[in-house]
Amino acid sequence: MFKLYTAPGTCALASHIALEEAGADYTAERLDFKNSQQTTPQYLAVNPKGRVPALVTDRGTLTETPAILAFIASSFPKAELVPDDPFAFAQAQSFNSYLCSTVHINHAHKMRGYRWAADETSFADMKRKVPETMAASFALIERDMLKGPWVMGEQFTICDPYLYTISGWLEGDGVDLAALPKVAAHRKRMEERPAVQKVLAAVKA
Amino acid sequence: MFKLYTAPGTCALASHIALEEAGADYTAERLDFKNSQQTTPQYLAVNPKGRVPALVTDRGTLTETPAILAFIASSFPKAELVPDDPFAFAQAQSFNSYLCSTVHINHAHKMRGYRWAADETSFADMKRKVPETMAASFALIERDMLKGPWVMGEQFTICDPYLYTISGWLEGDGVDLAALPKVAAHRKRMEERPAVQKVLAAVKA
Repeated sequence: MFKLYTAPGTCALASHIALEEAGADYTAERLDFKNSQQTTPQYLAVNPKGRVPALVTDRGTLTETPAILAFIASSFPKAELVPDDPFAFAQAQSFNSYLCSTVHINHAHKMRGYRWAADETSFADMKRKVPETMAASFALIERDMLKGPWVMGEQFTICDPYLYTISGWLEGDGVDLAALPKVAAHRKRMEERPAVQKVLAAVKA
Repeated sequence: MFKLYTAPGTCALASHIALEEAGADYTAERLDFKNSQQTTPQYLAVNPKGRVPALVTDRGTLTETPAILAFIASSFPKAELVPDDPFAFAQAQSFNSYLCSTVHINHAHKMRGYRWAADETSFADMKRKVPETMAASFALIERDMLKGPWVMGEQFTICDPYLYTISGWLEGDGVDLAALPKVAAHRKRMEERPAVQKVLAAVKA
């Protein structure tokens, strides 16, 4: 039995979908970011980083999306959410690392400039550049990374819910999905999956 | 036989040390960042991201430090560079994800503000905040993450060369190592290892 801490609009959606795809026994607890619930002493005791996702297991709590996704995959091997081959597994990890350390970071400069600067003028400057950095990252994903139909090719893996989560931010970030036909088709394909539909309904509820 | 593309002062040092610790057969090729060798057509054919590290293998090229480190560990199981237990492996991946997506990113705002903004005033603002963000990230590492003597406890893992690489930036980032005794002791312990000494000598040569 797992417990996933989530919040709407965050990258925790990827872990939520992965748990559902894996057929895991889990509950999802939504934090109220508008009231800064992620920085209460209660939540900081769960995750001192004050972020989501956090996955509570009977062994302890895991944080960081790429690690949570790979742990879900290894906990439910029958769901085959990662490639068996070590090189292909490393490629999947590389893709997820790129999402967390480059693409998510580009996006975060829209609303979270205060993490890296102090002045309002800097925040506005950062915000203006987001459409450009997100478009550049996704141009690379479209051209070189997304093999199709899924990120890793024929096998649906933990890369897919993560890409789906982050590509869901493109419209709000001012990036035209029409220039990214493979990414757009991937979004549509994801939304046809029962597990994804179930999670999206739960998130909206 | 692996080929690692590196550059002085970058996070590629972590993969370089891991290859040496693993006893891998490899060559290291240093790129000249001062002359923008990472953005030449020749190198972009190796790594379209124009960054280091890139690990060329007989199966293809891998990028992103956490993925490269885990691949080195799985390629040389006798070196025991990752925990066998899946939960402990996930914790190691979580640590490395934190380094790549939070700590390295904090550091990058010192010299690479142009990635996320356009104005010189923003770059200066970002640069001023680096001592604070790096100190905060390392306070968390010191308090909660570095178990000692190695990151994961008794076992030396792929987390250790990565931490060593990034903690090597603290002094230049204006963070006082005296406030981080466990991190400082970890640096010293790393520098006593023959593999680390060999790589540091090769990097300085």
